[in-house]
Amino acid sequence: MKETTIRELVNVSLRKPVLIEGLPGLGLVGKIAVRYMIKLLKARKMAYLYSPHFPYFVIVNRKGTVRLLRGTFYYWKNDKGDNDLMMFTGDSQAQTIEGQYEISNRILDFAEKHNVKTIITIGGYRVETEEKPKVIAVATNKELLEMALKANATLNTSSIPIVGTAGLILGLAPLRKIDALCLLGETRGYLPDPKAAKSILEVLVKILGINLDLSGMDEEISRAERIIARLKEIEERRALQIEELKREESKKVTYIA
Amino acid sequence: MKETTIRELVNVSLRKPVLIEGLPGLGLVGKIAVRYMIKLLKARKMAYLYSPHFPYFVIVNRKGTVRLLRGTFYYWKNDKGDNDLMMFTGDSQAQTIEGQYEISNRILDFAEKHNVKTIITIGGYRVETEEKPKVIAVATNKELLEMALKANATLNTSSIPIVGTAGLILGLAPLRKIDALCLLGETRGYLPDPKAAKSILEVLVKILGINLDLSGMDEEISRAERIIARLKEIEERRALQIEELKREESKKVTYIA
Amino acid sequence: MKETTIRELVNVSLRKPVLIEGLPGLGLVGKIAVRYMIKLLKARKMAYLYSPHFPYFVIVNRKGTVRLLRGTFYYWKNDKGDNDLMMFTGDSQAQTIEGQYEISNRILDFAEKHNVKTIITIGGYRVETEEKPKVIAVATNKELLEMALKANATLNTSSIPIVGTAGLILGLAPLRKIDALCLLGETRGYLPDPKAAKSILEVLVKILGINLDLSGMDEEISRAERIIARLKEIEERRALQIEELKREESKKVTYIA
Amino acid sequence: MKETTIRELVNVSLRKPVLIEGLPGLGLVGKIAVRYMIKLLKARKMAYLYSPHFPYFVIVNRKGTVRLLRGTFYYWKNDKGDNDLMMFTGDSQAQTIEGQYEISNRILDFAEKHNVKTIITIGGYRVETEEKPKVIAVATNKELLEMALKANATLNTSSIPIVGTAGLILGLAPLRKIDALCLLGETRGYLPDPKAAKSILEVLVKILGINLDLSGMDEEISRAERIIARLKEIEERRALQIEELKREESKKVTYIA
Repeated sequence: MKETTIRELVNVSLRKPVLIEGLPGLGLVGKIAVRYMIKLLKARKMAYLYSPHFPYFVIVNRKGTVRLLRGTFYYWKNDKGDNDLMMFTGDSQAQTIEGQYEISNRILDFAEKHNVKTIITIGGYRVETEEKPKVIAVATNKELLEMALKANATLNTSSIPIVGTAGLILGLAPLRKIDALCLLGETRGYLPDPKAAKSILEVLVKILGINLDLSGMDEEISRAERIIARLKEIEERRALQIEELKREESKKVTYIA
Repeated sequence: MKETTIRELVNVSLRKPVLIEGLPGLGLVGKIAVRYMIKLLKARKMAYLYSPHFPYFVIVNRKGTVRLLRGTFYYWKNDKGDNDLMMFTGDSQAQTIEGQYEISNRILDFAEKHNVKTIITIGGYRVETEEKPKVIAVATNKELLEMALKANATLNTSSIPIVGTAGLILGLAPLRKIDALCLLGETRGYLPDPKAAKSILEVLVKILGINLDLSGMDEEISRAERIIARLKEIEERRALQIEELKREESKKVTYIA
Repeated sequence: MKETTIRELVNVSLRKPVLIEGLPGLGLVGKIAVRYMIKLLKARKMAYLYSPHFPYFVIVNRKGTVRLLRGTFYYWKNDKGDNDLMMFTGDSQAQTIEGQYEISNRILDFAEKHNVKTIITIGGYRVETEEKPKVIAVATNKELLEMALKANATLNTSSIPIVGTAGLILGLAPLRKIDALCLLGETRGYLPDPKAAKSILEVLVKILGINLDLSGMDEEISRAERIIARLKEIEERRALQIEELKREESKKVTYIA
Repeated sequence: MKETTIRELVNVSLRKPVLIEGLPGLGLVGKIAVRYMIKLLKARKMAYLYSPHFPYFVIVNRKGTVRLLRGTFYYWKNDKGDNDLMMFTGDSQAQTIEGQYEISNRILDFAEKHNVKTIITIGGYRVETEEKPKVIAVATNKELLEMALKANATLNTSSIPIVGTAGLILGLAPLRKIDALCLLGETRGYLPDPKAAKSILEVLVKILGINLDLSGMDEEISRAERIIARLKEIEERRALQIEELKREESKKVTYIA
């Protein structure tokens, strides 16, 4: 394996598939959202993507078995709508610039092979807020952008860069006549953020016109919020201690002087 | 896209074209100068250059649309002179050594294909000065250097390296029997420097024998100077405060000792 | 040599060979274990592996001769059992991500060529302990894992990554229908650790069903332990001195305040 | 130029040529020695080596002309002896591991093409000494090593790595049935060291059996020594000042306490 390669696991024919991509990134927003979709839709494995640009370690689970870092494509047959779905998530982003381009292009190769005309990528957008996370939409064409805005996504008001696979796919897709939309969930980014992922999914189900019960995410969200609350407490206590220490120090100095 | 590739947008035949190159670098001198030329000459897009050696993010604009980092070739038909012009600028330099060589070579491939015999690259040269920026000329042959000196460029008096695409093109061009000239505008380099870019353009129009009204740059220059003046003020106030603080400190110390 | 290449030194036909791999890593556990096996079994050189991903220096010995960094394959004909052995060790791991994947794949190419169906890789696992080092087993299939557990290896109870060639081989082997087992010896990791290597070998000889007198390692182990004891002494003395210094300092401060 | 390439400048047929290599490295020993030989022998340019693994800048001289970083092969017809000479030096070492291997291999390709059977590489060896620099010899075979020892080189008594092209050529040459010797001049390494280069050349002329008046190097050596003496003075004065400052400080502290 000198290059990124895809191993197909099943031979499946999909109707007008839309590809949803979410790799680990800021707040793990993309990965959490796509994994939740896969779970709820009972989507099935379609192919593995291996790459020499992933980090050079393997993952061992508690049963003592082991596997290479990889990305996985899933598919879901949509009985009630026009578009079947393909989903892609994985263990890691590429570790080099060239690797980032190579992996994005392999994903697009695979999408082309399965006649994907639309790709939706998911990521996080760093914001210091405690309100309900907004979902920012960016697209390669206006129709797609309009669809996202109607589904309650918002337009970004300043020029921003989108880093990594979620961004590069948007940049590379038009070269292959594929439309692409990126949904970025607002997140503080330093912890897994299921709340931002839920906001994304609320927009996504409207765009796709599918039913998905997102209430199951609320437990995960509460757990994440309890962790954040605890970290805040620790942080505040430490700030207080430092404050006190400084006062003590300044007393000494005043005394000497 | 495993390698740097060029996508031609139009089929155009140019008469003895000269290529002007200016990518982002010190003080953005090259990019500002080339962009200004493109705007004034109403030059048209000719081709895009994409590369896996550019940074791995995409650029989003305020309308929510998105594009890959790229370089763009422009052309301008020169009705009054012998040489049509090609211009090249872009979002970024390559991020790796190998990428720098690859992109410079792709630019030269494209130049060769269009029978370019002369290339002029533009960059910045770091100097701490507040006078009118000088323009330093470096060339692969003497005739070209003479032309630049006659157009008020100056010779550098010490041995200097020219980093990045503006330099590598000069190094690589002779291997393809292409002449190349590099014009470096003096700049302090830490802010976009339209003044240095204007100095470059004053030399360039003389060399090329074309008419270009550069007065439109003056507004941009004033704006840049106001920013610099404000930054200086802030800097000086901070220096004063530090000075004062030190005096206070030294009083205390004297007192103790 | 643009890529990792293998130079075969002899033409040898092996019966159902098992490949044992141990490159330098944490505590040098893998390299020490494999080198000891090679010595005791009087295994013979089979091939060299050279790579442009090894560090760019050469090794000079005291006689003034010199050689490239390399890996070496050895073989041993097993007269009393079903499986001949191949062993691989070397001077260094690859220095880049892509190099790590490339070297692991070349090792697997060579294994495939010689009909290897099972590979055992050896590494270290960082633990702060002074007890007899445990041996953790990780495998690509259950039978192999069971064999290791029966030979006194233990299951890891948390999810761990295995970094470097020992890990990547496990990740890549299944793509070629090769089974692989990784034995990780507990080690503090910052010094060559023959004790951890011996623990590995105790498990390994049981799995392979071969006789190997490991008592020869005890001298090396005592020497390593004497070095550790001495380092500890130095460390403790330094800690005491720092303690004392701090007390002196605090006296002064108390006095001033 | 995607890869390191060699451009031949002349068509020359050499008798049993020996190749001497000296790129910039520790104390610039190799480059100084080879450049001095080229100058004295009035050796002529034979070929340029260009590489995308050199740093990405170009060198401008005071006349405003410019060139790519490169290596240069020279040749010298030896009328009085059996072996003509080829010499190689350049502006820089490769900047990446893969580049180091690639450039060393291109040098060997060129050597093979011209039927070189023996290569002598030159480098520096870091030692804190003020005595006459010794020359350490390392070789791929015993005869070559013996020749060097007879010419007053010494054997290194500990195992050392030789970093960079001078080392890699020694490692790679045997794979092509070429013998290679490396001469390392003792140097403190942080300044250009013509004294170490002279020691190398004294050994080299004996090995090659050629006449070379090395007295011309003495002026350069005196100049280098004057610089070192001055730096030492500055260093000592600074050390004194620091000493004094510390004494002042300790007085104050004593006073307070």
